[in-house]
Amino acid sequence: MKILLIGGHGTIGKRVAKAFAERGHDVVIAGRKSGAVQVDITSKVSIEAMYQSVGAVDACICTAGTGFYGPFDDMTAELMMPGILGKLLGQVNLVLEGQRYLNPGGSFTLTSGIAAEHPARNGTCVAMINGAVNSFVLGAAQEMTRERRINAVSPGLVEDSKERYGAFFPGYNLAPMEKVVNAYILSTEGAVNGKILKVYS
Amino acid sequence: MKILLIGGHGTIGKRVAKAFAERGHDVVIAGRKSGAVQVDITSKVSIEAMYQSVGAVDACICTAGTGFYGPFDDMTAELMMPGILGKLLGQVNLVLEGQRYLNPGGSFTLTSGIAAEHPARNGTCVAMINGAVNSFVLGAAQEMTRERRINAVSPGLVEDSKERYGAFFPGYNLAPMEKVVNAYILSTEGAVNGKILKVYS
Repeated sequence: MKILLIGGHGTIGKRVAKAFAERGHDVVIAGRKSGAVQVDITSKVSIEAMYQSVGAVDACICTAGTGFYGPFDDMTAELMMPGILGKLLGQVNLVLEGQRYLNPGGSFTLTSGIAAEHPARNGTCVAMINGAVNSFVLGAAQEMTRERRINAVSPGLVEDSKERYGAFFPGYNLAPMEKVVNAYILSTEGAVNGKILKVYS
Repeated sequence: MKILLIGGHGTIGKRVAKAFAERGHDVVIAGRKSGAVQVDITSKVSIEAMYQSVGAVDACICTAGTGFYGPFDDMTAELMMPGILGKLLGQVNLVLEGQRYLNPGGSFTLTSGIAAEHPARNGTCVAMINGAVNSFVLGAAQEMTRERRINAVSPGLVEDSKERYGAFFPGYNLAPMEKVVNAYILSTEGAVNGKILKVYS
């Protein structure tokens, strides 16, 4: 299977890349600055150029994108825009543009996160973005043609982020990397469509 | 109670306005072209001007905002932007800007919709927006200070829209207007916080 993985050098992405490579797939990594192909997912032009460079794929997985974390009182729509243009509309455009490059039977796998249901303090922007990604997937799954599928993986606080982000998520269980990776495998190699694959612990 | 109602001349809004007036509240209606105050919720400047004109309120209810409906294959991020800037970021800005005008103990009530969970065909953009509003409310509710609260009403296909939109929602039950209005009353006069008040049928 030829798999395009956007964000393949991130915390989750590098685990996903390794797992799919070990399973014998041809993984093409796209990243902002690294990877076989460069892409800025906030730009539709850049996404289109990436797909043209990579060509037809059997799966497109996105583990890229983040959003504003900070005090609610100081939050503004401006501070929210990078996340909206990236993790939200970036992933939306990966699907809208990617439809022409995804082979029949192929799948999109987007990444949302636990904040959609259980936001931490200071996490309202990310909550909003993750909730949007989840509901986008529910709608898009119904519109897929030629046996193509789309799902979202919604990870909790992942093990590999414990040191960097753990302090911001008191009381959140760690999501084992193996279970997180398995969700991407289920979405890509399985038959599920329109699922929010929650890996919260 | 002094209630600011944005979208008070819309299908749901006019029912909500009538109900709160009958319950003895002072309802100030804001609308794009009608109402006591004009507001364009896609503009932060316009929202700020509205709040300055109206002054402190005990409740802010938004029933305004819509989003793109149309074939998924033709959908683009550009077509999605009016809904993102209106129903999504418009409502977000009503909260972020409105915090300084909402009295202690007051409430925000936003409007999402059934598409967040059960999108109809062609409704992926609206699904995304509604899912975003719901998760925003979950996050924002935790950040409210001075006993202020925030909830979302998530209506299904409302009775009053049957004629206009019913054909686009085959198999959707009608949500009785009285139950929809009750959800706004529960959010505003009740004690609930961080709830998605679903009125699907």
